[in-house]
Amino acid sequence: MSSNAAFTGVLSPVVTPFDSDLNPDPQRWITHCRWLLSQQCGLALFGTNSEANSLSVAERLSLLDEIAASGLDMARMMPGTGACSIPDAVELTGKAVDIGCGGVLMLPPFYYKGVSDEGLFGYYSEVIQRVGSHDLRIYLYHIPQVAQIPISLALIERLLKEYPETVVGIKDSSGDWSNTQTMLERFDDFAVFAGSESFLLKTLQAGGAGCISATANINPAAIHDLYVNWRSDDADERQRSTTAFRESIAQLPMIPALKATIATVNGDDGWARVRPPLVELDGAQRGTLDALLKRHEFSMPGWGMGS
Amino acid sequence: MSSNAAFTGVLSPVVTPFDSDLNPDPQRWITHCRWLLSQQCGLALFGTNSEANSLSVAERLSLLDEIAASGLDMARMMPGTGACSIPDAVELTGKAVDIGCGGVLMLPPFYYKGVSDEGLFGYYSEVIQRVGSHDLRIYLYHIPQVAQIPISLALIERLLKEYPETVVGIKDSSGDWSNTQTMLERFDDFAVFAGSESFLLKTLQAGGAGCISATANINPAAIHDLYVNWRSDDADERQRSTTAFRESIAQLPMIPALKATIATVNGDDGWARVRPPLVELDGAQRGTLDALLKRHEFSMPGWGMGS
Repeated sequence: MSSNAAFTGVLSPVVTPFDSDLNPDPQRWITHCRWLLSQQCGLALFGTNSEANSLSVAERLSLLDEIAASGLDMARMMPGTGACSIPDAVELTGKAVDIGCGGVLMLPPFYYKGVSDEGLFGYYSEVIQRVGSHDLRIYLYHIPQVAQIPISLALIERLLKEYPETVVGIKDSSGDWSNTQTMLERFDDFAVFAGSESFLLKTLQAGGAGCISATANINPAAIHDLYVNWRSDDADERQRSTTAFRESIAQLPMIPALKATIATVNGDDGWARVRPPLVELDGAQRGTLDALLKRHEFSMPGWGMGS
Repeated sequence: MSSNAAFTGVLSPVVTPFDSDLNPDPQRWITHCRWLLSQQCGLALFGTNSEANSLSVAERLSLLDEIAASGLDMARMMPGTGACSIPDAVELTGKAVDIGCGGVLMLPPFYYKGVSDEGLFGYYSEVIQRVGSHDLRIYLYHIPQVAQIPISLALIERLLKEYPETVVGIKDSSGDWSNTQTMLERFDDFAVFAGSESFLLKTLQAGGAGCISATANINPAAIHDLYVNWRSDDADERQRSTTAFRESIAQLPMIPALKATIATVNGDDGWARVRPPLVELDGAQRGTLDALLKRHEFSMPGWGMGS
């Protein structure tokens, strides 16, 4: 755990709703953000599950303005601000700092493959120096199966040495527990978040900070309960049950399934829209999803109230 | 070959020079573009070798404005305009059409991996419809080893059926000759460019349009000579010699090596700069490069004149 890291517990990579022209829909988005905060979730806006890279930088900046004006607690926000280009990452990161976000989650640049740690260090350095703010708190984003650019232990070591006040944690979405464990063992003052609730109990037992998980978009209360009660006798049972729910949903394409769940449970089919290259669930998949949700007696209590 | 495709021959994915603050340097860039045109190269601005995805959309739009004002022949320009987000691709593509570019080279969206042809078709469709111009000519960009998102034969088939006037060709950078060959055999009215001069002769013999190759940045005349003389008796020898030069350069990281070559040959070390995550050649690599250039008696005749 980092003394500089403001976040612990469960964060949701907030799914991004689109209107009928496939433009981001701030109203639906803020309704969902407000509900997630009420469920004790931090908000990892603009994550992989947010279709962040399917949004232009201008769209992301505009959404950040909307949420800054919403009255929600900005200290609980950790927007994704990594980008292939340094100027884009600097613009997004600078805006996040300006509006008081508690931190940012930074992908490495992900177009070129097989780049060196030297090049990645150069990228993060350049962004940190150009943003030039003592308020900046960066959580690195390790998701090699998507970005194809791993954040190596050697790179973390070098960044921590050079920017100990700024680089404060990581989200490990590799699904490789031995990697998470090594980071937890090797780095002091470094907040490690598991990339899914399936590793939440193990992560907390090993001194980690929490998890940032797709399914926290729809199942935040149960995951937060596991976080709060991780030392209790029934922690293993709580872990099994949240994992079982996740694995049910994960039978379907995750992002369309999360959005379709919100659409179904709240009777608002507009929520099901995704931007290409993603594709909405088809009829058969929606049927499968409905059956899963019924089997889990799933609901989203309080969603849409007070919005 | 496509009756709608304006390009044949050799195109260079133009490397992008940076100033000492790592901002794009339009003056050096236009000098290089002018020289490449004088060597009979078309200009695939904003390709992989251009570090295009390390530039913000705003930087690319601004460079397009600069080149539109330069007096160079816009019909010979095929800028890369694919992006992870539809609005970015639409903005870049719309600008390219507005300033009279002969075509655009479009990467698929490359953040999400394992996406479906349905989703990729949706992406290209949305861009084509939003740009909404009869003047738009799209060359697809198949570079699976970098983008990790292949352009499948089935996707090409579907796009050609739906948008026969707009989707006119492809750059196949896979390095997989059997794939290039299959595209050449299967699709009529479709301009196939090899992704490197190593396949130029084979591509032309099989009815292809030419090549778009990194090394055309520095060795355009020899590659163009092969293109013009591909039916001559010494075509095999020309192919061997251009391939040998390419393979020499390819011993080093390609993009830094191309820029370092321009820097060395023209005595302008600012040309060697790259943006992270790429890294400039180090001293030892520069030594290797110098030796290679000497061995090939390499020069860039006429570079910088008339600029």
